[in-house]
Order: sequence, then C-alpha cells, then structure tokens
Amino acid sequence: MPSRITTDIDFDRDGRQLSFLRLPHSSNTSGYGWIPIPAACLRNGPGPTLLLVGGNHGDEYEGQITVGEIIRTLDPALITGRIIALPAANFPAVMAGSRLSPIDQGNLNRSFPGDPDGTPTRALAHYIESVLLPMADILLDLHSGGASMVYLPTALARGTTDAARAAGLAQLLHVFAAPVSVVGSPAGMSENRTLEAAAERHGVLNLGIELGGGARVTPAALAIARRGVRRVMRHMGLVADAEDGPPTEMMEVSSDACFVYASDWGLFEPLVELGDDVREGQPIGRLHSLETPWREPVEERFRTGGRVVCLRARGRSERGDCLGHVATARG
Amino acid sequence: MPSRITTDIDFDRDGRQLSFLRLPHSSNTSGYGWIPIPAACLRNGPGPTLLLVGGNHGDEYEGQITVGEIIRTLDPALITGRIIALPAANFPAVMAGSRLSPIDQGNLNRSFPGDPDGTPTRALAHYIESVLLPMADILLDLHSGGASMVYLPTALARGTTDAARAAGLAQLLHVFAAPVSVVGSPAGMSENRTLEAAAERHGVLNLGIELGGGARVTPAALAIARRGVRRVMRHMGLVADAEDGPPTEMMEVSSDACFVYASDWGLFEPLVELGDDVREGQPIGRLHSLETPWREPVEERFRTGGRVVCLRARGRSERGDCLGHVATARG
Amino acid sequence: MPSRITTDIDFDRDGRQLSFLRLPHSSNTSGYGWIPIPAACLRNGPGPTLLLVGGNHGDEYEGQITVGEIIRTLDPALITGRIIALPAANFPAVMAGSRLSPIDQGNLNRSFPGDPDGTPTRALAHYIESVLLPMADILLDLHSGGASMVYLPTALARGTTDAARAAGLAQLLHVFAAPVSVVGSPAGMSENRTLEAAAERHGVLNLGIELGGGARVTPAALAIARRGVRRVMRHMGLVADAEDGPPTEMMEVSSDACFVYASDWGLFEPLVELGDDVREGQPIGRLHSLETPWREPVEERFRTGGRVVCLRARGRSERGDCLGHVATARG
Amino acid sequence: MPSRITTDIDFDRDGRQLSFLRLPHSSNTSGYGWIPIPAACLRNGPGPTLLLVGGNHGDEYEGQITVGEIIRTLDPALITGRIIALPAANFPAVMAGSRLSPIDQGNLNRSFPGDPDGTPTRALAHYIESVLLPMADILLDLHSGGASMVYLPTALARGTTDAARAAGLAQLLHVFAAPVSVVGSPAGMSENRTLEAAAERHGVLNLGIELGGGARVTPAALAIARRGVRRVMRHMGLVADAEDGPPTEMMEVSSDACFVYASDWGLFEPLVELGDDVREGQPIGRLHSLETPWREPVEERFRTGGRVVCLRARGRSERGDCLGHVATARG
Amino acid sequence: MPSRITTDIDFDRDGRQLSFLRLPHSSNTSGYGWIPIPAACLRNGPGPTLLLVGGNHGDEYEGQITVGEIIRTLDPALITGRIIALPAANFPAVMAGSRLSPIDQGNLNRSFPGDPDGTPTRALAHYIESVLLPMADILLDLHSGGASMVYLPTALARGTTDAARAAGLAQLLHVFAAPVSVVGSPAGMSENRTLEAAAERHGVLNLGIELGGGARVTPAALAIARRGVRRVMRHMGLVADAEDGPPTEMMEVSSDACFVYASDWGLFEPLVELGDDVREGQPIGRLHSLETPWREPVEERFRTGGRVVCLRARGRSERGDCLGHVATARG
Amino acid sequence: MPSRITTDIDFDRDGRQLSFLRLPHSSNTSGYGWIPIPAACLRNGPGPTLLLVGGNHGDEYEGQITVGEIIRTLDPALITGRIIALPAANFPAVMAGSRLSPIDQGNLNRSFPGDPDGTPTRALAHYIESVLLPMADILLDLHSGGASMVYLPTALARGTTDAARAAGLAQLLHVFAAPVSVVGSPAGMSENRTLEAAAERHGVLNLGIELGGGARVTPAALAIARRGVRRVMRHMGLVADAEDGPPTEMMEVSSDACFVYASDWGLFEPLVELGDDVREGQPIGRLHSLETPWREPVEERFRTGGRVVCLRARGRSERGDCLGHVATARG
Repeated sequence: MPSRITTDIDFDRDGRQLSFLRLPHSSNTSGYGWIPIPAACLRNGPGPTLLLVGGNHGDEYEGQITVGEIIRTLDPALITGRIIALPAANFPAVMAGSRLSPIDQGNLNRSFPGDPDGTPTRALAHYIESVLLPMADILLDLHSGGASMVYLPTALARGTTDAARAAGLAQLLHVFAAPVSVVGSPAGMSENRTLEAAAERHGVLNLGIELGGGARVTPAALAIARRGVRRVMRHMGLVADAEDGPPTEMMEVSSDACFVYASDWGLFEPLVELGDDVREGQPIGRLHSLETPWREPVEERFRTGGRVVCLRARGRSERGDCLGHVATARG
Repeated sequence: MPSRITTDIDFDRDGRQLSFLRLPHSSNTSGYGWIPIPAACLRNGPGPTLLLVGGNHGDEYEGQITVGEIIRTLDPALITGRIIALPAANFPAVMAGSRLSPIDQGNLNRSFPGDPDGTPTRALAHYIESVLLPMADILLDLHSGGASMVYLPTALARGTTDAARAAGLAQLLHVFAAPVSVVGSPAGMSENRTLEAAAERHGVLNLGIELGGGARVTPAALAIARRGVRRVMRHMGLVADAEDGPPTEMMEVSSDACFVYASDWGLFEPLVELGDDVREGQPIGRLHSLETPWREPVEERFRTGGRVVCLRARGRSERGDCLGHVATARG
Repeated sequence: MPSRITTDIDFDRDGRQLSFLRLPHSSNTSGYGWIPIPAACLRNGPGPTLLLVGGNHGDEYEGQITVGEIIRTLDPALITGRIIALPAANFPAVMAGSRLSPIDQGNLNRSFPGDPDGTPTRALAHYIESVLLPMADILLDLHSGGASMVYLPTALARGTTDAARAAGLAQLLHVFAAPVSVVGSPAGMSENRTLEAAAERHGVLNLGIELGGGARVTPAALAIARRGVRRVMRHMGLVADAEDGPPTEMMEVSSDACFVYASDWGLFEPLVELGDDVREGQPIGRLHSLETPWREPVEERFRTGGRVVCLRARGRSERGDCLGHVATARG
Repeated sequence: MPSRITTDIDFDRDGRQLSFLRLPHSSNTSGYGWIPIPAACLRNGPGPTLLLVGGNHGDEYEGQITVGEIIRTLDPALITGRIIALPAANFPAVMAGSRLSPIDQGNLNRSFPGDPDGTPTRALAHYIESVLLPMADILLDLHSGGASMVYLPTALARGTTDAARAAGLAQLLHVFAAPVSVVGSPAGMSENRTLEAAAERHGVLNLGIELGGGARVTPAALAIARRGVRRVMRHMGLVADAEDGPPTEMMEVSSDACFVYASDWGLFEPLVELGDDVREGQPIGRLHSLETPWREPVEERFRTGGRVVCLRARGRSERGDCLGHVATARG
Repeated sequence: MPSRITTDIDFDRDGRQLSFLRLPHSSNTSGYGWIPIPAACLRNGPGPTLLLVGGNHGDEYEGQITVGEIIRTLDPALITGRIIALPAANFPAVMAGSRLSPIDQGNLNRSFPGDPDGTPTRALAHYIESVLLPMADILLDLHSGGASMVYLPTALARGTTDAARAAGLAQLLHVFAAPVSVVGSPAGMSENRTLEAAAERHGVLNLGIELGGGARVTPAALAIARRGVRRVMRHMGLVADAEDGPPTEMMEVSSDACFVYASDWGLFEPLVELGDDVREGQPIGRLHSLETPWREPVEERFRTGGRVVCLRARGRSERGDCLGHVATARG
Repeated sequence: MPSRITTDIDFDRDGRQLSFLRLPHSSNTSGYGWIPIPAACLRNGPGPTLLLVGGNHGDEYEGQITVGEIIRTLDPALITGRIIALPAANFPAVMAGSRLSPIDQGNLNRSFPGDPDGTPTRALAHYIESVLLPMADILLDLHSGGASMVYLPTALARGTTDAARAAGLAQLLHVFAAPVSVVGSPAGMSENRTLEAAAERHGVLNLGIELGGGARVTPAALAIARRGVRRVMRHMGLVADAEDGPPTEMMEVSSDACFVYASDWGLFEPLVELGDDVREGQPIGRLHSLETPWREPVEERFRTGGRVVCLRARGRSERGDCLGHVATARG
C-alpha cells in the first residue's frame, strides 16, 4: 500500500528544496491537517544519494543541528549528486524534546517497516522505508544518548553476515572516523525494527552515530558530527574536500554483558567517567535511596571489562535502566 | 503560630537519630497522612551546630548524596557539637526529581518565611525558619544547576552590608574552598524569600554551594562537596581533620549583565565551555529553530566579560531562559 | 469474526426502540462494564432502511441534535420501513465533546472496517460496517466542522467510477438540497477508512452532511439538517411529506489545491467570510505571532479560486492546519 | 512593596520601543528564567498616555491582533503623546489560547490589585496597577467572548457614582462608537478585582470592549476594534484623524436577571441569534442530553426582555454556565 | 467582606426549597458561570435549625445519600423549625468522587474560616461559616473514611474546655447513638480550620459522623446514619418520632499514639479487623514490597491498645499513610 | 516469532531462583531499559509444574501477597516438581495499583495470545503463552474484584465441551475448595483473549480465583487463597500436606442475565450484601444523582435470582458498569 504522506519536494530536481513531508493527521484542534516534517533535497545532476537523518529521537539534538546546518548552508551547486535530509525526523518528538512522539508514544527507531495506515510514527517509518531508502546509497542516522544517556562519540555499524556489506561498513566507519567505532554483534541482528535494519533491507550502507547526549549539546560533539558527515560526503564524491582527523578506534560490543542495568530504584552516582578503561567487577556506580537517604546504597558493577563509551545521564534511575556500557577492543 | 510539623527526633539528645519530619497532608489517597521528610541529628555534647541541607530543589542531586552519606557514615562519637541535616528537604520534589514540588508547584527556595497553614512547601519553609535555623550556627545549603543548568562548582555568599557578617562569610568561602567563590552583590539583597535570606534573618552564617547539575551526578562535583563540607566541619570544631586543597578564586556576580537570557525559542547550541574566559559581545551560543531547521539561528552574546561559571544544560530553550552567566574577578 | 457488541434492540421489530449498543470495555473503575452507545430503531412493516448517524465526531453537534430529535419525536406508526439511528456514534468522544475518543484517541471516521478485538473506536466501526450497513439502503452521516472548522452547509458525496452509483448519489444530493452540494473527486477514493467508504463497500448510497461547526450550534444549520433529512425520508418513501426549498448548487472540490494550509504557527485572522467567491492568489488571512506580536504577520493565499465553503474556526493555528477550502462550480 | 518585574523599555523615551516585561519565574525546565510579556511604548514628546491592553484573557484574540498591529505599524513620529501597550497581557494564557494562565490557573481580570510575591498572574496584575496605570490617562482593555461566549460588539463602562467620571465614560463610549454601549450598573461596583476597578482606583478613564469571540476571529469584529481605538486616539489628541461611523446605541445591563444560566448539563441549541430583540419568558434555547439523546430537552428562557448581546458559543454546557445575556435600552 | 456566593433560597420561607448556592467561577470553558452547590431549606414556622452537611469530602458517600434522602422525602409540613442542608457540600469534589476539589485541590475541612475572594473551596468555607452557621443550632457533618479509610461507625465530638459545651456534646452523642462515640482530646483543639472548629466559633453544637468508607456504600452504615440523624431531629423537636436503638459506647482517642502510620511504601495486608480489641505492640498488618515481592514484609504494630475503629481501605500505601487507629474506653 | 523477553532464571535448575523477566522498553527517561517483571522458579527434581500468577490485574492484591509469600517462604527442598510464579504479572499495572497498565492501557487478561513486537502488555502475554504455559501442568491465576468489584471468594473454571477437561476442572474446584465454585458457561467460551483461554489452548488445567476486592485486602480472603493454593499443590504432589476445610458449593453463572448493569450515572447504594440469596426482580440497589441529590434515585433490579457473589465496590457508577452478579445452584 502506498504512503499517504505527500511532499512538494521533487527529489529529481536540481537545486535546494526546503519543505515538508505532509503526514495527514486529524486531531481535536485540527480536523484536516498534517504534521509538517521538515525535509530537504539538495541536488546537482546525477550522482550518489546520501540520506541524512536527525531527530530520529526527539531528545537527541546534535544531529538536528548538524543536518539543519548542512541544508541551510551547503551550496547545492558545489555538490555532485544528491542529499536528502530529514533534520527533525520524528517531528512531534522533536517539538516535545522527547525520545518518543507524544502523539502515539512511538519510538521511530522501533517502528520499521511501519504502516501507511498506522499511527503517525509508523506512517513515517513506512514512508522512509518505502520512499526514501530506495533512493539512497548511504544513510547517516545521527543519534546521541538523548535525555537518559551520554556517549563518548561513537559510530555504530549493524552486524552483518554479508562479507561485502561488512567491508563497506568497515570502510565507512574509517571514513567517518569517530573517536570510537563499534561493529555490531550478530546478536543485534534480530532487531529488525530499526532504521538501520530497514537500510540493510534496501542494500543501503549506513551508520548510526552516537554523539554526546544528556539532553544537551556540546561544541565537541557537534564538531565530530560536522567533520564525519563531511568526510562521508567527500568519500561519496558529493563534495571535494573535508577536514581529516585522527583515525578511529575499532571496537565491538560483543554481548549484553557489556551493559550494566540498575538492579533497583535510586539516585545514580557514577564512579567512572566516559572513556575510562574498566575491568570486570569494577563498580560503575551506586544507587542511593531517595526516600531513606541513610540506607546503604546499592553498588552496581561492570559485568565485563572495556572502555566506558556510554553512561546514564540522569540521576534518578529505575530498576532495569541501563547505567552504561563498555566497548572492547575488536578481536 | 507554631508549626504543625512534628518529629520524633530530639535535637538535644546525643547520638545518631535518623527519622522524619512529619508534615501533615491530606490527599485523595490518604486522608490522615503526613509527608515523611528525611531528617537527621548527630550530636555529641555541647558545641556548635551545623545545619546541612540537600534537596532544597528536587533535581539537584549532589547535595542529596553528600548529606545522606554524612548522616549514614559519620560516627557521632567522633564529633563535638551537632549536625542537623535534611538530605532531601523538599521531599515531594526530590521524589519527583523536579525543582518544584509536584504537590503545590512550590519552589522551597522562594517560600521563606513560609506559613504553617500554607501549602506543604510553605509549611516546610516555616518549620526550617522557625524551628531549625534558631538552633544553627552555620548553614550549608547544597545546590547544583538542577535539570536546567550546569555549574563550575561554586560557593555563593549572599551580599550583606554588615561588615562582620561579610567577613564571616568571606572566611567561610575560603574554608569551603570551592574552585570558584562568589560574593553576592547588593542587588541580590532584595530577594528575601530564599533560605539564605532566612539564615541571615537569624544571624546564621551560610553558603549556597552550586555543584554541577544537568540532572546528573559527576564524581568530580561530589568530591568537591565532600571536601568542602568536611572543611567547614573542621573549621567549626565539629571534626578534627579534613583534606586541604587548592585555594578558591574569589569572584563576584556584580549585576544582571553577567547573565545571558534566550531572546527566542529554540535549540541551544553553546559555543563556549564552562570555565572559559569570555569577553563582552562574544557569542555564548546559538538558538536553532526546531520547526524550521533551515532558519538562520539566533546568536546570543555575553553582555559582559568574565569566567563562564554556569551554562544552560538543556537543548530546548524558551525566550527568557537563562543560557548562562559569568563571574568576574573581585575588584 | 463476529462483533462482541450486543444490543437488546431487535431490528426486525415494529415500533420505537430506544436503547444502547453495549460495547464491552474494561477500565480501571469498571472491570466488567460496557460503553453505552445510544441507538434507536423505528420500524413500521417492510420497506426501505435509512441509517442515520450523528456524533461520528464528538464535537459535531448539529447531527447529534437532529438525530436525537427524530428518534424522540417521529411516530413510528407514521413511517413505512425502518430508521436505524446512532445519534451519538463515537459515544466517548461525544461525552468529551472532542473529535476523537478520549479512550483510544480514535477517529471513528478513519477506523473502518474496524476490528472486533480492537480499541473501542475500532470495535464500533466493525459493528457499524458488519452489522448495521448490511441492513441499510441509504446512510446519512451528519457532520459539521467540529471545533476546528466551520462550514457553509454542504452535502458531500464520495467520488465513484460506478455510473449508476454516481447517478444515485447525484439524485440524493438534489433531494437533500443543502445550500451547496459537492461531488467528490476521484482523488478522495483512495481513502478507504471512512464511513462513506464502508457504505460504498456495502452498496449503500450515502451522503456526508457538513453543517456549521466551530464547536457551537446555530438555528440556521439545524434547520437545514432537519429539512434535508426529512426530504431524504420522503424520497425513500419512509414518510409522506417534507418541506421543499431552494435547489442546491452542485459544486466540486477537484483537487488538494482547493485547500489552504497554515504555513506557520500563529493566530489566524481570516480576511474572507464563508460564502465569498475568491480568486486564486487572494489572501485567505494572516497568521500573527503570539509571542512577538510586532512581527510581520504571514499572509496565506488561496491556491485556486472558488466559493469559500469552509474556514478554520479557531484563532490559534499550527503549521499544517487547514485554514479553509473552496469549492468550484461543477464543470 | 515594589514589583520584581523589570523591563528595558524606558517609558520616557521618544520613539518606538518593542520589548518585554520580565516576570521572574522558576520552573522545572528553567531555574532562573523570566516570562517574556510583550510590551511596547510609542512616544513622541509630552502629551496624553493611552494604555492599550490585549490578551487580558488568552482566548480573546481580536485585541491581541489590534494592539499588535498598532505597535507594529503606527509611526511614533506621527503621534503626540504616548501609547503604552500590552498586546498579550496574560502571556502564559495567550500562549495556551486559554482564558486562564496554565501556570497558576489565574484569571488576570480577577487578580487586581495583585501581589509582587504572588503567582505570575498576580505579580503581573500588581505591575499593571502599580507601574502602568499611574502613567495612563485612558485605558482600553480589548476583550471578546473568548472560547465560551460570543458578543455583539459592545463597549462597556464600569458603573460609578462619581458624576464627573460617569460623564467622561459616557463621552468615551460615544467616541469609541461600538454598535452597542453598555453603562455598568451599580451592582457591578462590588467587583474590585478587575482591571477596570484598578483603573478607577487610579482615576484612569477606561472601557472594556467585547468583540466577537467563540475562540475565533472575524473581519467584522476586527474592523470595529480598529476604528474604535483610532477614534479614542484622535479624541485624546494622539493622532489627527480617524474614520467616523454610525453612532452607538446606549444600553444597560441593569441586573443579574439579564443573564440566563444553564439549569442542567447538556448540549446547547440556541433558539435566538445575537442582536435579536427578545421578550421575558422567550426561550433562549434548549439543553439536549448527551448520554440519552431521546430525553426531552430542557428549555431555558430569558428572565427579562431586551437585545441579545451575548450568547454561549460552545455546544456542551454545564449547569451554571452563562447561556447569554441581554441589554436593555437605557432608561 | 461579604460572600460573593448567592442563592435563590430564602431561608426564612416555609416549605421545601431545593436549589443551589451559586459560587461564581470563571473557567476556560465558561467565562461567567457559577458552581452549582446543591442546597435545601425545609422550614415550618419558628423553631430550632439543624444544619446537615454531606459531601464535605467528595469521596464520602453515606452522608450524601442520607442528606439527599431527607430533603427529598421529608414533608416540611411535619417538622417544627428548620433544616438547612448541603448534601454535596464540596460539589466539585463530589462530582469527581475525590476527597479534595479537583479545581483547587482544596480540602474543605481544612479551609475554614475561608476567604470570599479565595479559591472555590475557601469561598465556600467562608459562606458556610459567615452565612449558614450563624443560622444554626446544631450541625451534623456526615463523613466516612472516604477512599482511603474505613470506619466502625463512629460519632465524634471535638474536645472543648467549656463544661456546658462538653455536656451538650456528650448529650448529643448519646442521642445520635452511633455504635461508638468518641470525645475529642484537647490535642485536637489546635486544629482550627475544620467545620467543627467553625461551629464552635459560632456556638453551634455539632458532631462529625464517620460512617464506613472505602469508596463504597453499605446498607449497614446508611442505616446508622438515617437513625442517628432522625434521633437528633427528634431531640431538637424538629420531628416527633424516631427509632431507638442500642446505647452508644463512649470512647476517646486520647493521643497520636492511637494512630498507626506506615513506616514504608508497600501493599498493606491488615492482620486485624474493624472492631477488634487489640493490645499495644500487636501487629496491625504488614507492608509487602510491590516491586520485589520476595522481600520480607515490614510489620507495623499498634502503639497503644484499644478498639480498632478505623483501618486503611486501600492496599497500596505510602510512608506516612495512616493504617488505622484505635479508640480506648473513656476513663 | 520468539519473544524479546529474557530472564536469567533457568527453569530447569533446582532450588529457589528469584529474579525478573526483562521486557525491553524504551521510554523518555530510559533509552535502553527493560521492565523488571518479578518472577520465581522453585524446583526440586522432576515432577509436575504449577504456574502461579498474581497481579494479572494491578489492583487485585490478594494474589500478589499470596504468591509473593510462597516464593519467599516455601523451602524448595520440600517440594517435588516445580513452581513457576509471577507474583506481579502486569508489573506496570501493579506499580500503579490499577487494573490496566499505565504504559499502554493494556488489560493483560484480554491480551492473549499477545505479540512479541506489541505493547508491553501484549509482549508479556505472548511470553506467558509461548514460554511459560508450555512448561505448566496446572495454572492458578489469582484475581479479586479489584478496585471496582468485591467478591464472595469464588473459584472459576472456564466452560469446555471436552469432557475430560471438564472433569479435571471440576476436580480442581473441589481441591481448591473456595466457598463458591463456578463452572463457566459455554457462552464464555467465545472469549479467547484471557489467560484461561490461553491455558486451554495449551492443555493446562487452570482456575481463576476471585478473592475479595474493593482495592483492599482482608485477612479472610487471604486465608482462603493460602489454603486453596496449598491444597492444589498437595493434589499435584508438589507438597505433602495442606489444611482441609469445608467443601465448596458448586454453582454456575449460566447467562448474562446473572449480571446487573447500571442503567444510568449515579452514586450506587447497594440494598443487598454479598452472599445474600435473591429473587428475580428484587432490587440490587439504587443510583442517586450526584448533581441533583433530590432527584428520585433509579432502582436497579436483579434479572434472575441466585446467590450474590459479586457487588460493585465503588459508590460512583456510570451507565454500563456492572453492579453485581449472582450465581445459581448447578442444575
């Protein structure tokens, strides 16, 4: 079934087009309206297509700024090929500054392949998968830790058993050159509802980039995003130049044991910093009782050693919340 | 009028007492209940009294952890005098992890001198001012930037025209030895609804300590809190020893011009880092349009030069939100 | 799968039956209850069946009043055939006075063919389509602009490529004789989730009537509803007499270009009135900034000329909201 | 006690100043922010001062547009004297499009004389009364029926026992020349919490203008607002010219018997139109049962005859809601 | 200051009058409306006045039914004197079925003496104290345990140091003859915000009756209410006859030690039943962990022995919630 | 498709394991977390498996306590076989104390067979049906009337046309020996979304136990639960001993006519008690108007005679709410 989403952007036209995906939505205050999802197409003749996505989660801001800046400032006359961009993909979530859409509680990155008649989040996923991905060669999906987590800037490639695809992804990680690159484990391959799974279904090479987080923006994370995206554009032949930098460190997150989850409710006091190298059994932090502050805090420990690439960025935590995770050197 | 709050803590008894202030509150799910505000008294014979407050705002976590740790771990036999502590002062706000109490939207630090028959937040302010402050010699009120701001750890003393009090406060700042100490300007003296204003009304020397923020906890900010509080305890004669550290830098926030406020709605991209020394007119950051990402962002600028001691820690910002402020070298 | 909805109305029994559809629904305050959807059957021997629906949207009041009046006041002994009526179809929405059901945010008119095990709105759609429509010859679905729009009273017939059906619908429009009649365009035929699409699936001739709106009721719109429904009843042979009136004007809404959508957020100042004949490019109104009232307002323009049959009836508007639409003379 | 609200507008400076009142407000997402209430000063030398207020209630839009237009378009060089304007006075209510502020549920027009330490609505009332009114000669407070009522455009003057003030108000009503002018009854004088009561306390002549309503904007109501305000400006000598129009009709609302209130819950079907002349006992409308549509509707009747100047503009009504009121010829 | 509440009830007129107190209230959906608080006056010539109150708390249903029944069924021609009744006193709370008013979170029974310009709950308290109580000789305020507690039916008299008043109250308890009568302790006299404190201020003898609870109604509790109220009416000479019953047991609640409060959060399993005679230290029940069901439950114990007259009627409990209380034989 | 839920419980391992089902759930405050559903496995060698479920509905507390107690206190060395237990099955509902999950409004007992990619409630249903039920021989699902109903303790067996299964269920009812046992009617067999329908699909014998309710816990209902579960364990050979009691009374609920539903909105006054034997036409209670207390209450009547086994436990009722039901002697 075709999408009900329309747009006045002509993806085959040269030049800069800045407009909206019109996602039909009937609400109590607007009977016949649509949700205006910002979209852009920059094109200059034939060539490769890069699909840039920011705001897959509404509380991840670095990608929203980076993608917005590119579509605002890049002169389409200077590129060869095409950039299609969604700077604020799950737009209701972006407007709310929340991970999930406030309309349908939808997590866009768990909504693929979507449904043209489903909730707004699922209708959008369907459009991205059925309309945009078939046009793309490479997808960069710019995430961060959002309101709940903070990352050492890291580029992620989904695990694959296809050797050619694996090689392409590895090359792309080197091109992007985030401080840390993580090659996904086969375990992650069962998750087929993400945008990266959708990209794989369409043979599109893609990276997910995790840039900072904690509901805020830092100059350092933005700089990494800007440089990495530019390098991928140069790599594709879209632009002629980009700034080089230090090589990335190839790591892996080989199992769920790399993650630490809160075993109780409490106020999270981390005992490590992002980037620390830790050993198995080392405490990641303590959970303090909010209601009985003199209770002995619960100590939480790493289940495997490695580099701390992600930490929980909210004090208040619930049992089951991820408190952080490590990556390990690629074997 | 006396407070309706009761407690089974006997503030004149030696030893460690860990219990609750019972703030009567009738709700739809509890007709005759009370709000259990954690409280502690550690006492060993006569001597000075230190009043320790954490959780004045519910989203400021460092003080909650620091005060909770002291009342849990400090052996009362080893002190001389008394420590009275509220580790989670605005308890409903602490449980919600929010600055304000979800019951009455009360900001405890704008609720003094309070009202025994007022909302829970005002009833608590009245208790602190009418019952606890008269017992205290020194008050340490441990804050942080909360969910919206993040601080370079800073100790603040309220401005005063009383020379003796000013000297006492300056000494206390040197004792606490936060990385930055700020002596308040006379402008701040018109704000009489804060806990520090209440302390001044009762002749209690007090500091407000701003430790990190951004809705999270960092080991570094906690370390400063622990050391500073211990040094004040040593200074008062409550404990014998404490760890010394580098001297504090005495600064001032001389006028509202030290603060930068958002002139529009948008996504805040800071262009400086905490601790940067900036000049007047330098951009503090940009506000990006959420709904039209290709709109030129709004640049916001410092109105005066100085050291960046506070920055907004949330991406999404509204017109009027404080984006940060500087402190200047004390003249 | 059969519906789980039951009723004690016997649709084959003569006389007036006023009761409820019992839609099973388990809530936090009622474990074993049902939602009581008002329903009526007026029958006198064999003959045609008219299905009357009000309250498809809860904020559209004219139909609720008109259908309620008929089932309360019409003597079944004076009819030939049967009237089945749902005066408050999406009952939870009707009770809330909102377009969508507050229970499941369901828009009944986008929920067909429904699902017997789905949310209440979808279960109701399934019942209407699988139980009521098979009994009907003609369906009148009485709408209005609801809380967000206001209409020049207009009868709408869904586009069809079936010539016999098209002729039947055209005749029905002349019978109802609303001030304006609109024959749907083929473009609308892709929308298969409406009650009118369901009617077409069952070979039931049907009109959607748009009567005023703006969250209020006017005597003029009610008079049009009462007369039009009565004329359809006479046309079907259900009743012997009805009041005639001026002929309707046959128009069309040939494309999406007939609609104007807000290009930004703001306070909508219309510059035209309902019924005005406008030309392409003429302003429909202005959007004023709420937060910066001295900003130049955004002017919105008609994309095609025609008669203004619908206008937004709420000052506050969001990008994507429909601000109004025109109909054009039928070519 | 002085207000804590500040502004960078200098009310003694010539020219056009467009900025904000800064109402300090600490929220869970902004620790140190302020609410930015739009404000303007247009001044050209000495002369009279007109205080213009729109958005006293957030769902009354005509005044917001009219005042915003004046401060945006009127060349201050062409005036003699001063215009101080609050186009969106209860700013949080304006942003929410609601009568009351969503922050404190405050009705600004029942909050005078206010309180500098009270809720935002009360702090604003205090600023208007203690800072702005002392500068004004005449106040025009532009209202409408808001979301719940709709008016025949009407200018209202508060009743007074001071003959000179009464004469001044009567003259002002003739100057404004709304279709209907209503001179307040003594009964209204006990209400001392309104802006008009505040104006009287400061010897400022003032009118409240009721312009349409029903949560929407009409060109006709706006035209009346624009012309009336301009005539008052000409009358004051602020501007040289204005468009004249038909004289106003002087009426009165002599007692509570002019008002009709809903005696039950239901869906309101009005049986009269705005501007109708009605007699005592004539039905104003009917209340239909939402949940049992076949129940006999409740008929509501006028308690006194007169001209219908106000009608309820929402279908759904509760017992106690005002359904409309009449004005009577001035005796 | 006089109340702004009006009514069309004439308290000096004979016969049955059933109408409303009109509490002016402006909301987002009704600009000029009033809250319709049901009220009744039954009068037959001169004589004593009984003020009957139900619905002081909205979740206490027995009194609402009892008072409603009396004003509906009692023939005023058969009484001597006057009954003034508020069957649903805190009307917004009654409509919501909650202890507190959803409009202002007001607990009517902690709002005396009220404020004519305060929130609706406080304005109502002011009306009851300033208008109704001065007309009354005796007040019966019919409560129950509401949603959170359940009572052994008990009549309560506020403690007093006035011997004549104490004698009058004791007599009234014997007249009402609830299964248990409790004479208040001096400790309760500091609570001056209740209706019973207001009654004492006006020299009105009054009882508070606690009838069942647990958010439900039982035939047994209703029977006690009906008989007791009737006996008080007979005692006053209002009616000639009433049904006698077993004598009441005079008890007291001498201190806060009679109450047991939850020391933690959990699911409350009571180990006693209402009416049990318990000894100090006996468990009242256990609190089970909701989130870790295998944690050892917390046992809660009576702090003094006595008769269990009240138990918590909700499984889920928070620290500080009252779990029950005992009364002891009157010494 | 396999479940995405994991657990560290090894259901084939001997001993007591107390841990959690990890239901992946991404929220605005936890990007990568899981919902921690308490689970237990007690095993001692080969033997039969009993699956124990409490908290199928979050407001039904007796089962939560009973199951929690068993897994906490029963020594696995003393059993033969295996007990798998979910003491708080719909965990988000349990934490909220509500029938439905606050996350997805899911009623677990209408969510089978579930969906591994559906909402949390549906994902859990899928896990129970696809992972746990295949391991079980007998299932006991401990319910109560929850917040809205209260039961005479009753064991229910789903109707079946399979004679062997019917015999097994009848035996199980005698073993459990609740005061009342109800054999389900064939009418109930169309409901295939319940846990009992799922059990039947897997050939697992099961009972649903209704124990008290009314949002509270009683010692009497708990005693019945404890004894009945123990007897089933003895019957299975899991434990050696159990306490015997009086035999159960076998009854049936043969049709919907056993249920009484509210015909209007109002305050429910029951006129019968649980356990009463009633005749057809006898009043079950009255519905009193909340807003017009002097309106004649609506009397509701039993549609068939029998034993009252269930009554509504909330005063406030809506049309369609179940007010109670009877069971009849088994014919």
